Amino acid sequence: FLANGTDIGLVAVGFSGGQCKPGVDAAPMALIESGLVEQLTDDLEYKIHYDGQVHAYSDLIPQEDPDHRNMKKPRAVSAVTQQLSKQVYEHAKEGRFVLTLGGDHSIAIGTISGTAKAMRERLGRELAVIWVDAHADINTPETSDSGNIHGMPVAFLTGLASDKPDAPFGWLKDDQKFSVKKLVYIGLRDIDRGEKKILRENGIKAFSMHDVDRHGIGKVMDMALGWIGRDTPIHLSFDIDALDPMWAPSTGTAVRGGLTLREGDFIAECVHETGSLVALDLVEVNPSLEEQGAAETVRAGVSIVRCALGDTLERIVILGSGWAGYN
Amino acid sequence: FLANGTDIGLVAVGFSGGQCKPGVDAAPMALIESGLVEQLTDDLEYKIHYDGQVHAYSDLIPQEDPDHRNMKKPRAVSAVTQQLSKQVYEHAKEGRFVLTLGGDHSIAIGTISGTAKAMRERLGRELAVIWVDAHADINTPETSDSGNIHGMPVAFLTGLASDKPDAPFGWLKDDQKFSVKKLVYIGLRDIDRGEKKILRENGIKAFSMHDVDRHGIGKVMDMALGWIGRDTPIHLSFDIDALDPMWAPSTGTAVRGGLTLREGDFIAECVHETGSLVALDLVEVNPSLEEQGAAETVRAGVSIVRCALGDTLERIVILGSGWAGYN
Amino acid sequence: FLANGTDIGLVAVGFSGGQCKPGVDAAPMALIESGLVEQLTDDLEYKIHYDGQVHAYSDLIPQEDPDHRNMKKPRAVSAVTQQLSKQVYEHAKEGRFVLTLGGDHSIAIGTISGTAKAMRERLGRELAVIWVDAHADINTPETSDSGNIHGMPVAFLTGLASDKPDAPFGWLKDDQKFSVKKLVYIGLRDIDRGEKKILRENGIKAFSMHDVDRHGIGKVMDMALGWIGRDTPIHLSFDIDALDPMWAPSTGTAVRGGLTLREGDFIAECVHETGSLVALDLVEVNPSLEEQGAAETVRAGVSIVRCALGDTLERIVILGSGWAGYN
Ligand SMILES: [Mn+2]
Ligand SMILES: [Mn+2]
Ligand SMILES: [Mn+2]
Ligand SMILES: [Mn+2]
Ligand SMILES: [Mn+2]
Ligand SMILES: [Mn+2]
Repeated sequence: FLANGTDIGLVAVGFSGGQCKPGVDAAPMALIESGLVEQLTDDLEYKIHYDGQVHAYSDLIPQEDPDHRNMKKPRAVSAVTQQLSKQVYEHAKEGRFVLTLGGDHSIAIGTISGTAKAMRERLGRELAVIWVDAHADINTPETSDSGNIHGMPVAFLTGLASDKPDAPFGWLKDDQKFSVKKLVYIGLRDIDRGEKKILRENGIKAFSMHDVDRHGIGKVMDMALGWIGRDTPIHLSFDIDALDPMWAPSTGTAVRGGLTLREGDFIAECVHETGSLVALDLVEVNPSLEEQGAAETVRAGVSIVRCALGDTLERIVILGSGWAGYN
Repeated sequence: FLANGTDIGLVAVGFSGGQCKPGVDAAPMALIESGLVEQLTDDLEYKIHYDGQVHAYSDLIPQEDPDHRNMKKPRAVSAVTQQLSKQVYEHAKEGRFVLTLGGDHSIAIGTISGTAKAMRERLGRELAVIWVDAHADINTPETSDSGNIHGMPVAFLTGLASDKPDAPFGWLKDDQKFSVKKLVYIGLRDIDRGEKKILRENGIKAFSMHDVDRHGIGKVMDMALGWIGRDTPIHLSFDIDALDPMWAPSTGTAVRGGLTLREGDFIAECVHETGSLVALDLVEVNPSLEEQGAAETVRAGVSIVRCALGDTLERIVILGSGWAGYN
Repeated sequence: FLANGTDIGLVAVGFSGGQCKPGVDAAPMALIESGLVEQLTDDLEYKIHYDGQVHAYSDLIPQEDPDHRNMKKPRAVSAVTQQLSKQVYEHAKEGRFVLTLGGDHSIAIGTISGTAKAMRERLGRELAVIWVDAHADINTPETSDSGNIHGMPVAFLTGLASDKPDAPFGWLKDDQKFSVKKLVYIGLRDIDRGEKKILRENGIKAFSMHDVDRHGIGKVMDMALGWIGRDTPIHLSFDIDALDPMWAPSTGTAVRGGLTLREGDFIAECVHETGSLVALDLVEVNPSLEEQGAAETVRAGVSIVRCALGDTLERIVILGSGWAGYN
């Protein structure tokens, strides 16, 4: 689904307005300073298209931004994600893989709307989304307790929530959305009551940590990718809090009982192996929350990105080449 | 097997006489102070029947308590467990779920004898026991090296060991015992020679850590619950040392190579899902052994209890509702 | 394949010349001081044949040792491994299990050549090798970037690399080698480009960490041992860096995403259970690299050795005896 296997459009989003804790805006710089771009260029031999800046979108943030339908900072999040949607769309319509470094998870409203639109236009195809997260992020403004929009992106992107044309998220059109039938969750372990109801009523495919424990991550990935099917472009939206705090402590809403780093990397590797991955978000790394844990969390983030992009020197190749495994 | 799904009888047992290290008597208070009761009441909506005190049973502890058949403090352990047996029986005969916070594992002589008797009387059924532990705790007074009674409760409860009517454990009657055929171990990794022989000769079903590694915890739980079968009331006796010291360091006889907290929670969740769980012991948390590790161990204990009691806001519900998983 | 099940020939190799970091030569003493020999003697009831010294082979190390075909210290490594080969051969031809404590992984040139020759002579059988490592150690002098010989032992031992008769590794004869068809890797996650090509072109059986994640360690061991088949003597060469740095941080080339200690122990247990294990190398423990991590790494090493030698008091017996597990 990409023009070639070597071009990456990189977007660095220093935005934290979808939730309340400052610091998640510093993640893109921390990831880049840890050598991510060099690794993708030198080790994995990608060609990176990057405008060289971490976008804070300061000019888009309104002075006044009162709550709207219980949402906090609705105009800021709306303006930023609308602009981000264009940036991602521009890369994706060129057939580039789009790598977005967040920022909090509200930015997925921008990234996924951008790839969904581009896939429809370029290939006439609907996008599938794999959402790896401790949380479902599928609250509507009405079911949310906190009003933080980083808990709502999936609701807006699937049309379960929507705004009137002249309201903040009125800009989001049908060709920028994706179907709840094309959504798969992995890693869930902290779901609100309202979300639980939404998941059940819409028959959404979700693999909680309980499922990972029951089946093992190998089987879960077989099932997750089987649900999506071949020949469907995939957007992987990876919230670092899907990992257990043992590997990724420095994040805003850590929840015990998460994925090991090995399981996180394995998920990314398996999605890469499909050959259908067209975009990756890495979000919710917050380097300011923990002193020692910040570096570890950044390293975990880099590892996930590398694995999703093929990291062929190391792990993947062994298996992918067909001569390993038992047969 | 319960009168309703909402009533819990809570017994807090501050007793450490089944072994030698002081401090395990402080566990019930530590668990309660960390918010366990509020969580069960507010989050999980249980109605707790609790007399508001941690029982030290000081009036039952004799001044003189010389060894009997190699057992240390036999009269103290006997008197405490006989009294505890009555307390647990009183809750269980009312159809309440019985949650006992220990204390060392000798107290299971009291808890299981109480539920075994109540299940026979109320329902005419034999009790099954799932014993999650690094140890088998099935020494007889004669096979035990240490003489600590917390290594013997299963032997007395299954009738493999017994005392004469006028000896300390003479009070334990047949209707308070359960069959070795209804016993399943999970997590074993430190078994004495004598115990090994007992396990083998009695054909007791045991899933060691080697089995957990070989099959995965999902398959092990299928096998464990399959062995017990449906329609049998289950008493879950959970020794926190079943968990690896990485998650539960603050316990008297820690052994490396144990369950992850995710696996421990998963066991508790699976037993809850059967709908047959009638009682839970959480034992061997010893907050005085480690400074930093104590809080972590208490948190792990709270997590096990929550999972065994359904913790429906989070993990369980996803799976249990049938819309997740692949089919 | 052993004369009896109780005799162990122990060789302690304090050699670090196959790589650049000092300290790995101190591992045998650290392992022995932590009680390994007493545990094998007292707990596991082995009879140990040990000359009582850690061999530094100082008299074999030449003053001048210029690079040869890009290899660093070729004459030192050659002389030490040739001597070690004789020592191991002497034990193995007596039908003893040979336990070698390294030292860096270059010493496997000595150990495996010794057992390979002895198995051919004593039993007329070819040796199988299970190489547990983060790395493949199968570079030829020409494909190696570093020139460190601890990255090349498998190439020399399988004949993929060889030296002229009068060159350093010219001493290695065909009856001291083993077939690439009898080689199985477990734990790989950091492989050089050249090695990747070698693995693929020779159809070598390798289970990377990706495979362990996909199938679980239980299935991987079934496949690994199935590939080797019954009735073949097995030499297990265990590089401690196969374990994740969480359990074995103090090693020269640690790589994230490794085996848990439980998985490492499980591998060793399964190989023991075959009854075909004739030799074990434990290498690359470097107690000087980490202050706190050194003790933990040594403990992990001791645990691997105990499990490979049956450690029947604890884990193994439960499963092996047939009364556990579900059937
Ligand atoms: Mn999250
Ligand atoms: Mn999220
Ligand atoms: Mn125990
Ligand atoms: Mn116990
Ligand atoms: Mn290595
Ligand atoms: Mn090695």
